[in-house]
This record gives sequence, C-alpha cells and structure tokens, in this order.
Amino acid sequence: MPSEDLLRRYAELVVRVGLNLGEGQDLHLGCFVEQSPLVRAIAKAAYEAGARRVDVFYSDPLVQRETIAHAADEVLEWTPPWLLTRLEYMNDRHAALLGLSGNPYPDAFAGLDGDRVARARTKEANRRSMEIVFHEQTVNWCGVACPTEGWAERVFGEPNVERLWELVAHAVRLDESDPVAAWSDHVARLNARAQVLNERRFDAITFRGPGTDLKVGLLPVSRWAAAEHETVDGRRYVPNLPTEEVFTTPDPARTEGVVRATRPFAPLPSVVVEGLELRFEAGRIVEVRAERGADVVRGQLESDEGACRLGELALVDGDSRVGELDTIFYDVLFDENAAPHIAYGFALPEGLEPGADGGNQAETHTDFMIGGAEVDVDGVGADGTEVAILRGGDWVLA
Amino acid sequence: MPSEDLLRRYAELVVRVGLNLGEGQDLHLGCFVEQSPLVRAIAKAAYEAGARRVDVFYSDPLVQRETIAHAADEVLEWTPPWLLTRLEYMNDRHAALLGLSGNPYPDAFAGLDGDRVARARTKEANRRSMEIVFHEQTVNWCGVACPTEGWAERVFGEPNVERLWELVAHAVRLDESDPVAAWSDHVARLNARAQVLNERRFDAITFRGPGTDLKVGLLPVSRWAAAEHETVDGRRYVPNLPTEEVFTTPDPARTEGVVRATRPFAPLPSVVVEGLELRFEAGRIVEVRAERGADVVRGQLESDEGACRLGELALVDGDSRVGELDTIFYDVLFDENAAPHIAYGFALPEGLEPGADGGNQAETHTDFMIGGAEVDVDGVGADGTEVAILRGGDWVLA
Repeated sequence: MPSEDLLRRYAELVVRVGLNLGEGQDLHLGCFVEQSPLVRAIAKAAYEAGARRVDVFYSDPLVQRETIAHAADEVLEWTPPWLLTRLEYMNDRHAALLGLSGNPYPDAFAGLDGDRVARARTKEANRRSMEIVFHEQTVNWCGVACPTEGWAERVFGEPNVERLWELVAHAVRLDESDPVAAWSDHVARLNARAQVLNERRFDAITFRGPGTDLKVGLLPVSRWAAAEHETVDGRRYVPNLPTEEVFTTPDPARTEGVVRATRPFAPLPSVVVEGLELRFEAGRIVEVRAERGADVVRGQLESDEGACRLGELALVDGDSRVGELDTIFYDVLFDENAAPHIAYGFALPEGLEPGADGGNQAETHTDFMIGGAEVDVDGVGADGTEVAILRGGDWVLA
Repeated sequence: MPSEDLLRRYAELVVRVGLNLGEGQDLHLGCFVEQSPLVRAIAKAAYEAGARRVDVFYSDPLVQRETIAHAADEVLEWTPPWLLTRLEYMNDRHAALLGLSGNPYPDAFAGLDGDRVARARTKEANRRSMEIVFHEQTVNWCGVACPTEGWAERVFGEPNVERLWELVAHAVRLDESDPVAAWSDHVARLNARAQVLNERRFDAITFRGPGTDLKVGLLPVSRWAAAEHETVDGRRYVPNLPTEEVFTTPDPARTEGVVRATRPFAPLPSVVVEGLELRFEAGRIVEVRAERGADVVRGQLESDEGACRLGELALVDGDSRVGELDTIFYDVLFDENAAPHIAYGFALPEGLEPGADGGNQAETHTDFMIGGAEVDVDGVGADGTEVAILRGGDWVLA
C-alpha cells in the first residue's frame, strides 16, 4: 500500500477537485473490497470538507461471478429495489457520487458463458443512473482509479502495485507540490483549447495516418468541452481524474472512411481488442477487422440500433501525462487520456450546445484510441479549408 | 486464511444447517470487508442450494469511525431510505439473512466520544429489523463467526488467525467427518433437554456458588427452547452456530438475590466487563459492582425502562464445545455458549408459549455468564421442592 500521506493527498484531491464536494452533501461511494485503505481516507476527507454522510458500497466481482454462474436468466438483469431507492435519494438530495476503478479481478468472469456475462448488470439501475448523471445533472460525480494487485498484474504481468501507484500518482499530478493548484492550471489550459476550437466552428475533423483516413462530421450545435462539468445547481466539478482531453459530440450520420486503432483497449474488463480497423459509411460502422477481439466489437455494435455510430470525438496531445507513461492500463479512464480517440455508442450532452439535441443515442459507449505521433489531425471549415490541429502528436492550433 | 476445503465445508454448513436455505430464496448477507474469502464461498454454496440471488453488504468499521468522529448529531442515528427498502424486500419475499461476526477492528472507536459511539446506529432500521426477525418471523436468519486478524489479536493478544480458525472450526463441529450429521445429533440432544425441562414446569431456577445466590422466577407461559427457530412458513433453522444452550424467558418481576459473573464479557465491541456483581430486588437490578466496566453496565441499565430486568435465562453444561476451549472470545455468539448465562434487556418470543406475552421489553439485550463448575443450578417446583439440574458443571437432570 502507498503511504498514509499519499492516500490523504489523493483523497483530498478527489474530494476538492474531482467532486468539489459541497457542505452538507451526501457522498455515495462505489468501490472494491480491496480498496478499503483509500476508501477510508476519502471518507475522512469528505467529512472534513463538510459531507453530511458518506455511504460506501463495496462490490465484489467474485460474488458476481457466482451470480453469473448460477442465477436464473431473469435474475441476471434484475435490479434490487433498494438500489433504485438509493439512486432516487441521490437524485432528490443532489448528492455527490464517486466510483473507484481498478478491478482487482479482471479475469473474474473467465470461462463463463459470454452472453450471460454481458447480460449480468442491474439494467434498470444502470439506465436510471445514466439519466440522473448525464441528463438530470443533479449529481457531481467523479471516477478515479485505486490500484489493486489484480489490476497491476494485468498492466505489468506481475502484481507490482507500488509501481502502478507511482504511475497513477503521476497521471493525477500527486507528484506536484500542490496538486490542487496544478489541477487548476491544467483545467484552465484544457478549457483554453476547447475555447479555441469552439471559435473555429469546424464542420469536420480529419485523421490521416497509417491505416487511417477518416473524416468525422460535426453538428452545427457541436461544442468542444473539457475537464469540468456543471450540475443543475451550478456546481463545477472534474468528473475524471486524470483527464487530458478536449471532446465534442459528432454528427452521428457524417463519419466516412477507415480508421486503425493506435493502441489495444479493453471494452469489457476481461476482453482486450488489438489492431482494430473500422470502415464507416454515412456515419455507420460497416466493416470490422481486428487482430484480436473482433467478435466482441461486432457483438457490441449489434447490441442496439445506435451502437454502430459515433458518440464522441476527443483530442489529446503528446504532452498528456497518461500518454507519456507509454503503458496500456486496460482501464478506459487512463487509456482514453493517452491519445486522440473516438467512441461508438451514446453521446454526452456536454459535447453539444446547452439544451441542443442531435447526438447519437445508444446503450453503450466504447472509447478507442486512433491518434498518436504518426496521425495528423486537421479541422475542416464550413468552406472546406483545412487547419492543422495536431502534428507529430503536438498541439499546433493557436 | 484457512484452506479452500474448510471454507467450502463451513459455507455448506451455514447454508444447509444454519439457514436451511430454501430453493428460490434470496439471501441477504452482512459481513466485513476482511471476510471476503468466506463470503464468496457462502455465495457459491447458497446458489448451489438454489438461492435466487445473493445480496452482499460489506460494512467497514473504519468508515463508521469517520462518521462518528465527524457527522452531525442527527445523522448518527439516521437510517438511509435504501436500507429500509432492503429490509421490507427481505420481509415481503421471506428472504434468508446471514450475519458474519468477527469484527476486524474491535478498537475502531477508541478515543471517540462514548455517547456518540452509543448513538451511532441506524435506529429505525435496527428497530424494524428486530420486528421482522423476532416478531414477524418471516426470515430464516443465522449469525456465524468468520475469524479476522483483528479479532484474533483481541482474543490471543496476537493476530494468530489460524489458531482462531481452529477453535471456531471445533466449536461449529467442522472437525467432524460429517458436520451436517453431527449438527443433527447435537440439535436433537439439546431439544431433548428442553423437552425434559418443559415437562418439569419449574416455577424458578436457582444459582448457588461463590458470590452467587440467585433465584430467577419463571412465568406460567415460560417455555424452554434450544437450537432451532421456525419461520411463519414452517422453515426450521439454527440461528446461531455454535449453539450449546437451552433457554427460556423469565418473569421480569421475580428475580431476587445476588450474582457474580463467572467470565469477562464484552457488552460493546470495544468494552470488556470483568468481575461483575449484581443485586436484584423484585426483578430489578438495584446494585452494580465490577472490577472493570461497571460504568458501561450502569449506562446500559439506565438506557431505557426495561433494561434493568432479565430477558433470558440459559443453561449450558460442561460438555459445551465452546466452554471446553477455555477461551474468552469477546464475541457473544461464542462466550454465551461457554456457560450458563442470563441477559438483561429484551426477551425473545421463542422463550414463551406460542403467542404468549409477558417477557421483558427493552431496546438492548446483554448476555453474561454466571455458571460453571463451582455453581449449582436447581429447578424449583410450584410446591417449592428443588431438583438438581447442573452439578460441577455437568447436566444431572434426567
């Protein structure tokens, strides 16, 4: 385990910057059993910041494994009533919500029937949770990682949890003397980039590199955003630590061309996709190839009507603290912040003008990295003129 | 940790004998984070026995410590709405309920304000839980122990969790070749003792030994019970593993004399009471002395109107598997099964004829041991004749 001091500093960063927790707010925390030392530090920091009550739910993938292996079909997707009560309380009281990633058992579901694994989720609670978080926007939420031995084994091939803590601490700027101030600067820098992109009002973004020649059309109401979200109460918070991206919601009907993923990614905790190549026509993914995991991607794309169209386009430059670690984390919170990426599946309202419609609708959302030093990224104006945004991985748009 | 095989055997014993889990029943499990290996084995055994769904709630005394240290007064006793929804679901569906004792942090609340520690409980949920479990009797419930390092440290002065597993395994008969069959024999033997006591229809029980000369009056509707409870659906189950007692509900107005505790006990997780001496008049405790912890006992007795009267009288003989371990476990599930004991506080309906009233009413229930090799126990008939029940710790009533 890391030092008490590191846990305390991380907990304070999460509470102050990630959640921007308000006096009198309840905090709902979801985490794994193996993360209890950080959980306790976060509970302390939350109360010191004025939390009314901290409500911790520890989940256990190995209990979930038994459920998938044994429970009746209709039980797999079932939501226990108490979970809905907890969500509605969170919504009614405008509570804060924190999730710790870092699955200690990435292979927990190995050997189980893939269809049952995919169906085993509290469907009604997941739907309601998405509504509350992304549409009602009553909740200041944050996702951060807490290293575990199992996650470290997945990343390094050995359970070197100390090394994983070092990488995570660097990625979230805990190695700065004043991490809270460092985040303030970082958020301002990302916001400035989003501002420049918004002033340009690009009609499309192009990606060109080895195996990639892709044009992603934007909507008239597409807006570039970064780092911070805001609740209906005007509370600004940073929902992902780390975050290195500026992102927008593309036109779901106007992506054309071919794209090759520049990094492996893990669309499900126990699945790795390598060498993905997609072809788009009029916004739809019409061809899927991969060195590994193509069947899982095809399964996701067929899962509902909107799954085969893009819901997100995000730009990340070569200075990214995650990118410079040159590590595959098998955790979207980290991997998506290593390089430019797109996501097939649902769109976030933050990528559109306030109140605007038009983003893609779907049940899932899967990010994968398509940028890097070899991929040029350009903005295309309404008149067809192209302007360089990223060259050799560096941000060149002024 | 113990072997996979021991965990599997223990899990099967808990599911088959303790809960007697029925096909299609939900199982609600409450436990500590540090007990996850046994929890996973129990989830597996429960599904194999036909459970519909296993719902695990991991609690964390070190998060609770932060709540006690920081939360507002009114939050300490507050019940989150989701917890009531979970209880009502359990009641509506006649689910099974399992609790694991073995607190890994017995000193979690050290140094905190004692009044706030005592008030920090989900009051409404606790009240409703008692109603459901003891009065509505819709739920087959069971309490069993799972050793943790913190509990072992408390018992032995060192975190020898392997040794604690050995003692627990002996106490719950896991060292028998067929523990389920051994429990069937044991339950039959305890039931036979209860049957003999019921046929005698004693009017009172006396305890005589060093520092003890106590007469506990019984009610006309007092009934001796042992080992098994029964739900409203007729499901018979064993709510405590281990259990070595035959018990009854005394007349709350008819205890007279003095009694000296024969073992230390822990009325709260972080409190030990040693050398307790009580004097009773007309059922009320009117004098409290102790070498250690008298103030805690006095605090409990003053907490409500009924707290100073007896709610339980239980007989345990010298063959008790817990008693022969000659160990203070600081866990009532074990310590009360080491020797004859009484409890101040509320009475259980199982100690009365079905549907009868008259047992003591209170919010708390604290057992402490008053018997042993030096204490004679006799039954007193309606005509005043006395019959020996325990001599030198051995059961002598035929």
